Amino acid sequence: MPVNLPAPTASSLLPIEGIEIGIASAGIKTVGKADLVLIKVAQGSSTSAVYTKNAFCAAPVTLAKQHQQETAPQYLLINSGNANAGTGEAGMAAAQQCCQVVAELADEAVNTVLPFSTGVIGQQLPIDKITQALPEAFESLQSDNWFDAAHAIMTTDTVAKAISKQIEIDGKTVTVTGMAKGSGMIRPDMATMLSYIATDAAIEQSVLDDMLHNAVEQSFNRITVDGDTSTNDACVLIATAQAGHSVITRSDEDSAQKLYRVIAEISQQLAHAIVRDGEGATKFIAIDVEQGANAEECRQVAYTIAHSPLVKTALFASDPNWGRILAAVGRSGLTEFDLSQVAIYLDNVCIVDKGEPASNYTEEQGQKVMDQEEITIKVELGRGSANDTIWTCDFSYDYVKINAEYRT
Amino acid sequence: MPVNLPAPTASSLLPIEGIEIGIASAGIKTVGKADLVLIKVAQGSSTSAVYTKNAFCAAPVTLAKQHQQETAPQYLLINSGNANAGTGEAGMAAAQQCCQVVAELADEAVNTVLPFSTGVIGQQLPIDKITQALPEAFESLQSDNWFDAAHAIMTTDTVAKAISKQIEIDGKTVTVTGMAKGSGMIRPDMATMLSYIATDAAIEQSVLDDMLHNAVEQSFNRITVDGDTSTNDACVLIATAQAGHSVITRSDEDSAQKLYRVIAEISQQLAHAIVRDGEGATKFIAIDVEQGANAEECRQVAYTIAHSPLVKTALFASDPNWGRILAAVGRSGLTEFDLSQVAIYLDNVCIVDKGEPASNYTEEQGQKVMDQEEITIKVELGRGSANDTIWTCDFSYDYVKINAEYRT
Repeated sequence: MPVNLPAPTASSLLPIEGIEIGIASAGIKTVGKADLVLIKVAQGSSTSAVYTKNAFCAAPVTLAKQHQQETAPQYLLINSGNANAGTGEAGMAAAQQCCQVVAELADEAVNTVLPFSTGVIGQQLPIDKITQALPEAFESLQSDNWFDAAHAIMTTDTVAKAISKQIEIDGKTVTVTGMAKGSGMIRPDMATMLSYIATDAAIEQSVLDDMLHNAVEQSFNRITVDGDTSTNDACVLIATAQAGHSVITRSDEDSAQKLYRVIAEISQQLAHAIVRDGEGATKFIAIDVEQGANAEECRQVAYTIAHSPLVKTALFASDPNWGRILAAVGRSGLTEFDLSQVAIYLDNVCIVDKGEPASNYTEEQGQKVMDQEEITIKVELGRGSANDTIWTCDFSYDYVKINAEYRT
Repeated sequence: MPVNLPAPTASSLLPIEGIEIGIASAGIKTVGKADLVLIKVAQGSSTSAVYTKNAFCAAPVTLAKQHQQETAPQYLLINSGNANAGTGEAGMAAAQQCCQVVAELADEAVNTVLPFSTGVIGQQLPIDKITQALPEAFESLQSDNWFDAAHAIMTTDTVAKAISKQIEIDGKTVTVTGMAKGSGMIRPDMATMLSYIATDAAIEQSVLDDMLHNAVEQSFNRITVDGDTSTNDACVLIATAQAGHSVITRSDEDSAQKLYRVIAEISQQLAHAIVRDGEGATKFIAIDVEQGANAEECRQVAYTIAHSPLVKTALFASDPNWGRILAAVGRSGLTEFDLSQVAIYLDNVCIVDKGEPASNYTEEQGQKVMDQEEITIKVELGRGSANDTIWTCDFSYDYVKINAEYRT
């Protein structure tokens, strides 16, 4: 059961002028279930993307990066059910063949197609199933298919993740719609699980790139479910330039800020949705580390807490066993770490003050916070003014069940 | 159920001349259950010890380090059921008071007593219970109490961990007996969970220190259950010099080597016992990383695999989902990592060759290895001649159960 994560409704997802989406059932996951998404991007659009830093990145990631460097993308092809990762030369050939068939059907060059895959690692992509289903994907291309697409890209997700927002720029309404998938193998590094965000705004390429990188740094790159960085992470931002306002450049500070904020908000909501729907999650946890010498050490402490199986199982049990948080902070590896400056809070309840157990803390106070579905663990390091926040979930029986039975 | 870990028998544990052990029930764990161990070390013995590097180390660790620097230890006092960690100044006062009472009963200086605690973090030590039980511990001092002591120091352990070995030095029989406890919060860093090894050999202090450090580096510092380094880790090696041979110095290479080997063997068997009895463990896994540029990067890759919840749950499920091993290797953070040189094996079954799926691998081969209780994951990095091996276990429903219910 996801934590406070309502499913999106079809009507809440606004189409983006210049984006058409086709859906098909290739039979990669379950026969009859949608598992293929084709996104058609109008000419004149700008596209930015970030990809996993896992050294064993999947064939489609390698190919998408290469195609994106060569020319402006016109088609994004996404399949779920198979990651086409760890598949060697045959996997690369399969990704190329999928792009080739899309290019032929669209009468475009092969490098205008970006391939994306998500699902089981280490099995060859069923190319025949995909190429046979591609005509269905082309036939179903339409602008209001975000809802079905958000469902078709799911793997172990229990709830679809998609959202729309609108702002005004130069008197024109600008729409942003985004979707994401992800639930396990979540510890995005410079990228995310699969996420696609599109807007009809007109944005200069370098500004678009900055917007995506900044948004990702505040969202997908600040979440973890299990510490496992995927081989297939990718986040794509498309601006179709159809909203009617003039192109946003670096000098348009106000408009750029407005648009950046809404893209960051959507990214953060989608990233939080991935954690709320984390495999087996029963709690949504923010870990806020403050007063660090720099943001990097704040993240180091935060991720040590977030990846501690003992902290995560205590959160699952609603057990205010704060000794486990303290032990995680203590092993996080900060140099010249003066514990006498450290404070730790569960929400607003101080549990450690100046490195010692808080004198007026009671187990009842801790229990009250732990019984909640959403908890903030705050650590003050007392060694500077930097801070950072990450989000994670707890570790339950169901995490083990989902991942022990994943391929059965 | 521990993995291939027979319980020690009382008769298999050989007393060490110069070591007496007292046992008592202080009622810290369960009333009537032994939870207090007093080790009396004969005058003229040498003692070496290593402690946790967790910055939030427990009060007894701080005090034991201090006392050990000041003088030769005559008594080791160990309690289970309460770690006296995260207990601030009151915890330090409690550890001091325990040492004080032992010193008074023994008519020795307080700094001849080293305190050790293991159990729940963040609760004050019940000093009264301990001091009331200390006379019982003194009265029961005798040389053949290793079996009961190995049981009294257990917390979530399901099996006691102790072993004896004998060798000959200069025609004299030398005995080594060791015990350890540990099951969860296991990722020793420069130290271990609690472990006490004693020998009647006579060893020069600097040689003894080297022996302990080298033994720990091949045993306790190469295991992980859940990646959580304890606040209370400690490993103590005592040489009572009662076996009758002349003192072993640096120039006695043969005798030193012989003795070092047996201490390393005992350390490794005890460390393996901790993993075999890891919380919820159903499999015992060796992770062997070879052909690294240096041993440190071999460990970096090995621990990334060992701490991956996805790898650990696949091991629990006996699922040869090797894509998860590959993804963990890929995210391990090695710089200038050329995947085309990487090979991965499950026991002798090659699953990845030159960075690509091995051409003649079959799922049946992988399944056969995965069905075993003991598995070696071998990674060849192809970037040098360094190697290192660590040991870990899988991640089961019972790990979550044990840690969710730990304080209830």
